[in-house]
Amino acid sequence: MEPLNIAVVGLGRMGKRHVHTLVYRVPRARVVAVCTTDKNEIEWATNNEEYKDFGIQVYSNYDEMLGHRGLHAVWISTSTDVHASQSLAAIAKGIHTLCEKPLSTDLAEAQYVVEAAKCNPSVKVMAGFSRRFDASYRDAAEKIYQQEAIGIFVDCAIHNIDLSLWYLGNPVPKACWAAGTLQHHPELKDLSDVDNVVGVVEFRGGKIAYFYCSRTQAHGHDVSTEITETNGKLMVNVIPNQNNVVLADKLGMKHEVQPEYWQRFEDAFALEANEIVEAIVKNKELPLSLGTGITVMKIGQALQQALLTGEVTRVNESGERLN
Amino acid sequence: MEPLNIAVVGLGRMGKRHVHTLVYRVPRARVVAVCTTDKNEIEWATNNEEYKDFGIQVYSNYDEMLGHRGLHAVWISTSTDVHASQSLAAIAKGIHTLCEKPLSTDLAEAQYVVEAAKCNPSVKVMAGFSRRFDASYRDAAEKIYQQEAIGIFVDCAIHNIDLSLWYLGNPVPKACWAAGTLQHHPELKDLSDVDNVVGVVEFRGGKIAYFYCSRTQAHGHDVSTEITETNGKLMVNVIPNQNNVVLADKLGMKHEVQPEYWQRFEDAFALEANEIVEAIVKNKELPLSLGTGITVMKIGQALQQALLTGEVTRVNESGERLN
Amino acid sequence: MEPLNIAVVGLGRMGKRHVHTLVYRVPRARVVAVCTTDKNEIEWATNNEEYKDFGIQVYSNYDEMLGHRGLHAVWISTSTDVHASQSLAAIAKGIHTLCEKPLSTDLAEAQYVVEAAKCNPSVKVMAGFSRRFDASYRDAAEKIYQQEAIGIFVDCAIHNIDLSLWYLGNPVPKACWAAGTLQHHPELKDLSDVDNVVGVVEFRGGKIAYFYCSRTQAHGHDVSTEITETNGKLMVNVIPNQNNVVLADKLGMKHEVQPEYWQRFEDAFALEANEIVEAIVKNKELPLSLGTGITVMKIGQALQQALLTGEVTRVNESGERLN
Amino acid sequence: MEPLNIAVVGLGRMGKRHVHTLVYRVPRARVVAVCTTDKNEIEWATNNEEYKDFGIQVYSNYDEMLGHRGLHAVWISTSTDVHASQSLAAIAKGIHTLCEKPLSTDLAEAQYVVEAAKCNPSVKVMAGFSRRFDASYRDAAEKIYQQEAIGIFVDCAIHNIDLSLWYLGNPVPKACWAAGTLQHHPELKDLSDVDNVVGVVEFRGGKIAYFYCSRTQAHGHDVSTEITETNGKLMVNVIPNQNNVVLADKLGMKHEVQPEYWQRFEDAFALEANEIVEAIVKNKELPLSLGTGITVMKIGQALQQALLTGEVTRVNESGERLN
Repeated sequence: MEPLNIAVVGLGRMGKRHVHTLVYRVPRARVVAVCTTDKNEIEWATNNEEYKDFGIQVYSNYDEMLGHRGLHAVWISTSTDVHASQSLAAIAKGIHTLCEKPLSTDLAEAQYVVEAAKCNPSVKVMAGFSRRFDASYRDAAEKIYQQEAIGIFVDCAIHNIDLSLWYLGNPVPKACWAAGTLQHHPELKDLSDVDNVVGVVEFRGGKIAYFYCSRTQAHGHDVSTEITETNGKLMVNVIPNQNNVVLADKLGMKHEVQPEYWQRFEDAFALEANEIVEAIVKNKELPLSLGTGITVMKIGQALQQALLTGEVTRVNESGERLN
Repeated sequence: MEPLNIAVVGLGRMGKRHVHTLVYRVPRARVVAVCTTDKNEIEWATNNEEYKDFGIQVYSNYDEMLGHRGLHAVWISTSTDVHASQSLAAIAKGIHTLCEKPLSTDLAEAQYVVEAAKCNPSVKVMAGFSRRFDASYRDAAEKIYQQEAIGIFVDCAIHNIDLSLWYLGNPVPKACWAAGTLQHHPELKDLSDVDNVVGVVEFRGGKIAYFYCSRTQAHGHDVSTEITETNGKLMVNVIPNQNNVVLADKLGMKHEVQPEYWQRFEDAFALEANEIVEAIVKNKELPLSLGTGITVMKIGQALQQALLTGEVTRVNESGERLN
Repeated sequence: MEPLNIAVVGLGRMGKRHVHTLVYRVPRARVVAVCTTDKNEIEWATNNEEYKDFGIQVYSNYDEMLGHRGLHAVWISTSTDVHASQSLAAIAKGIHTLCEKPLSTDLAEAQYVVEAAKCNPSVKVMAGFSRRFDASYRDAAEKIYQQEAIGIFVDCAIHNIDLSLWYLGNPVPKACWAAGTLQHHPELKDLSDVDNVVGVVEFRGGKIAYFYCSRTQAHGHDVSTEITETNGKLMVNVIPNQNNVVLADKLGMKHEVQPEYWQRFEDAFALEANEIVEAIVKNKELPLSLGTGITVMKIGQALQQALLTGEVTRVNESGERLN
Repeated sequence: MEPLNIAVVGLGRMGKRHVHTLVYRVPRARVVAVCTTDKNEIEWATNNEEYKDFGIQVYSNYDEMLGHRGLHAVWISTSTDVHASQSLAAIAKGIHTLCEKPLSTDLAEAQYVVEAAKCNPSVKVMAGFSRRFDASYRDAAEKIYQQEAIGIFVDCAIHNIDLSLWYLGNPVPKACWAAGTLQHHPELKDLSDVDNVVGVVEFRGGKIAYFYCSRTQAHGHDVSTEITETNGKLMVNVIPNQNNVVLADKLGMKHEVQPEYWQRFEDAFALEANEIVEAIVKNKELPLSLGTGITVMKIGQALQQALLTGEVTRVNESGERLN
C-alpha cells in the first residue's frame, strides 16, 4: 500500500501541529512538503532535524508546492483570507483538500468553494470541524440519538454552532440575539468588537441553543457543553482537566487545566486526519459535508449582526435573514 | 432570654419545612402557632404529635392567629396572591414579617408592602431570598469581592436574578431577550407559557447575565451558577451531589443528586431563619432589604415580556421599561 | 413536653461544640449546665453571653454538677483517662450518659462501664461513634446491605475500625499487622509513637479491612472510605469539599476542603444528639450498643501491638489475642 | 532516515495492540513481522487486511522470525514462561529487545537476562513498565520531586510496586505482610491463590507502601494511586473516567469508566514505544534500567511469601529475604 502524499500549507502553531499529527498518528499518510511565506517559518522548517528525518521539503511558493511530484492532498492552515483561493487552486489541480474552518469570512466566496467541490466529485474537499471527531462529543452524540427528543442545547464556548446543528438534528434557525462586553482588550473598541459575548439562537421546532464565548480564560482551555434532553442532560467537559492528577495542599485540592485547544483536542485531530486520509485512499465518503460549514457561517453572521445592532435577527424558513 | 414567638402561615410543603427549621435549628425562636385554610392540612397539623410536643396551636383564620397572645413574628408561606395582604395585615399590627418571595406578582402591590414597611420602621419585614444564606454562594461572594472586576455572570437555573444583582454589584439593566420552548407540559400552551427558557440581561457598564430555567429535571434538583471574572471564574454546584457517596458498578460511576430545592438549601434556610430571628431579637438590621425584591421583579417582568413578544425589552437608566 | 436537661462535661473544642449542637440543633434538649476544671475555660464560660442567654450554669466540680436540680443526662467530653470514672459516677446516680469514645484506654475499665450499664437498664449509656450518623455513611450502609456480599473494606483514615464492623457485618478478626513512620513530630519518638501508620486486619470469613491514619493533613480534614463489593465498590468522600464552590484561575481549578472533623461531621453530631435524646425521652433503644466500642478497642489494641512489635497479632475465634 | 524494523512476538490482546501502537503512533518504527504459535492467531494475522497494507509478515517460528532480513528489534508479548528464553535468543543475535514484564517468575532466570544485557552493551534491552510513561504519573513524579520529602505511598491497584520505587526514591525494603481473600474465582483455591489482596511494604528510612489488588472490577479499569507528602498529597486517577461525558438522568449523575488497562494507558504505550525506538535509533540510554525489574520482582515475591505463610517477610539491607 502506497501512503498518501500530503503537503501542509501554513506553518503557524496549528500548521506545525498538523505536520506532527500526520507524521506521528496517521500511518497511511506521508508528509512530503510544507509551504509558508513567512521567512522565520521557512528558516525554522529548513533547519528542522525531524523534517529532514522524514524527508519533508520546504516551499515558499504555494503554486510550486502544488506541483510537488506525486502530491495527493493539501492541508490548508493559513490565514482565513486565503483559505478559499488556496482551496480553489488545489481543487482545480485535482488535489484533495482539507481546509481549516471557516472557508471564508465572505459567504459568497465560501459558497464558490462548495460549488467547485461539487463540480470535481473525484476530489475530496472538507472543512475541519475537529470537535466532531472528539471521543467525548461522539459519545454524547450516541447517547443523544438514543434518547427521544432534545429540548435545549447549552454550550459555553466559542466555535460551537456546529455542535448545535449536530446534536439538534440540523434544525432551521428562526431568530437570535446577542450581547457582548469588552473587558480585557480595549484595542478592539475601534473594531466594534467585544471579548465576551452571550448569544441565543431560537430554532424552528422548539429547539434553542445558547452560547457563551470568551477571548480570555485565565485557567486554561475551558470548553464545556450541556445538552438538555427530555429525560435528563448530558454534560461534556464541565470540569476540564489537564490529566488525572489532583494535588491536595494547604490551599485545598487542585487540578490543572489543559492550557490550549490543542491539548484538549489532540486526539480529535488525529482521528479526523485518519478518517480523511482513509476516505481519500479508499475513496469513501468524507465524514462531514462542506454544506454544514455554510450553515454554520450563516448562523454566526446572524448572531454577529444581532450583537452589532442590538436588535433581534430574524431568519425565514430557508435560512435567509429577514433583517 | 425569652424566645421569639413565631407563627407560620401556610402549611404546604414549604410551610411545614419552615416549622421544622424554626423548631430544630433556631433555638431563639419558638413556634407558637400555625395557620392554614386547607382542611387536610388543618387535620394533619391538629393530629401531629410533634406539634403537640412543642405546643404549637393550629389556626384556620389568619386574623385570629395574628391575635395569638405574645406573638412576635409571622413566617408567610402561603400562595403568592395573598403574600401582600397578609404582610400588610401583620405589619399593621406591629408583627415582624418574613414573607416568601415574591411579595406579589403585581409590582404596585409589592411596592405598597415596601412603603408600609418604611412607615413602620420598628417592624422588621423581609422577603426570603434564601440562596443569599447558602454557604457556597456566600463563599463565592467573598471570593468575587476579592477580585478586581466582574465581566459576565452565568446561571443556569430558575429564581436567580437576585444572585446576578448580588454578584455584579447591583447593576442597572439596559436590555434583555428571551426564548422558550414547551416540551413536557402541553397544558401550558393555552397560558402562553413554556417549560424551558433561556434569557439574557445586558446591564449598563458591560455586565451581562444569562439564565437557563427548566420546569423539569429528571435527575434531581440541579441549580448551578458560573461567575466569570477578569482572572478566572467561579462555579457553584456544577456537579450537584446528594451526599459524599459514589457508587461504582458495571454502568460506571454514579452519584445521586438532591431530589429537591429543600435538600440543597436546608442549611441556608436555617441560617436565614437564625439571622432574621437574631435581627429581630437584638434589633439589628435585617440581612436583606425589601427593595432588592422589587428590582428582581422588574427584571423578571422585562424578561417575561421579551419571551412573549419576541422583541428586545429595553430599560432606561432608572430601570423603567421603554417598550 | 418537657425538654431533656443535659450537662456537658469538658469544655475543650469538642465540649463547646456539643453545647452548640444541643442548643441549636436538638429542640427536645436543654443544656442546663457545663463543667470544667480548667480555669480559662471556666472564665470563658462564665462570661459567655450566649450561655447566659440560654441559662447554662457553669460548674468546676463534676460531682456537684451531677447534683444539678432536674438533671437528666450528661455528655462526657473530657480527657480519656476520666471517661470511665465519670461515666460510672453518672450511671450510679441514674443519669443517662453519652461518653465520647473510647470509654477507656484500659480494656478492663471499659468493660466495667459496660457491666455497670447492664446492671442499670433504665439508664441509657452510649459511646459516641458519630460517623454512624453521617448521611453519606448511612447511605453507603443501605447500598451495601442491598448487595450480595462484601469482600474488602478500605478506609484511609483514623478512627474507622467501627465502620469496618458496621459494613462487614460484625466480623471476627483473625490476624493483623501494622507499619508506621514518624515524619512530623520528633517529640513522639520517646513515646514509641508514630504520626503516619498503615494497618491491615484479616477477619474470619475472607473479609479484610485496611486503614491509613495520619496525624497531619495539610489540605484539611480528609476522611475517605472505600468498600469493595462483589458487584462494584462504594466510595465515601474520596474528593472532600468545603462547599460547592470551584475556583478556576491561572493555577487551574481549585476547591477548598473542610478544615476539621467538625465541619465534615457537624450534621452527624446533630443527628446523633437528636437520636440519643429521643431514645432517652421516649425510652427507646439507643442507636448503638456499648459492646461495639469494646470490640473496636480490642482490634485497635491488636493493631497497636503489631505496630510496636513488628509481629503479626493473631486473635482466636472469641476475639482474644493469642500473642 | 531509515525506520527501525521491528517484529512483535505473541499476538494475544496485548501483542495486537503493540502492533497497532507501533504502526499508528511511532513513525520511526516499521513493523515488519509478527510471530505466534497459536493457529487461530496465525490465521487471523494472515488474513488481516491492515497487516497486508503495511507489509507485515507472519511467522509461526520464533527463530525463523529472528532471521527476518533487516530486523532490528523485537517486542516480546508472549506468556511469561518464555519471556526470558526469547529475550536471551534475541540478545544473542544482537537484536534490541523490549520484553513485557516480568522477565520471568524465576528470579535467577530474570537475573540471567540482566547479565546477558550487560555483556552485550550495544543491544538495548528493556522491560516494559508502561505506567512510567503515563502523562499523569509523570506529572505526579515532577510534583513529588519538587517537594521536600515523602512519607507514605498509597496505591490501590495491581502491578504498582514499581511506582513505589519511582516515587519514594528507590528505597530498600525492610518487612512486608499481606492478606488475601478468594471471592469470585473458586477455581483458584487449589492453586492457593486469591482474587483480592492487600499488602504492606515497610521500607528502611520510614517510608511505607501499601497496595490493594483485585482481579475483578465490575465498573471498568480502576487504577488509582495516592502519594502522601509532608505538605499534602497527590492523587492519580481516584475518579476514573472513560471520557469527558457526564450523563444526568433519574438515577443521578453517571460517567463511564475505561473498560480496560488499554484505554487508560494507550497514550503511555505510545510514548513508551516512541522513547524506546528513539533510544535505539539514536543510540541513547533507555528510559528504564533492567535492574529495576529485578527489585520489583524481589518485593513481589516477598509479599507473595507473606500472603502464603501469614508471617511477616523480613528483608536485610541488601534486599535479601531473611525468612
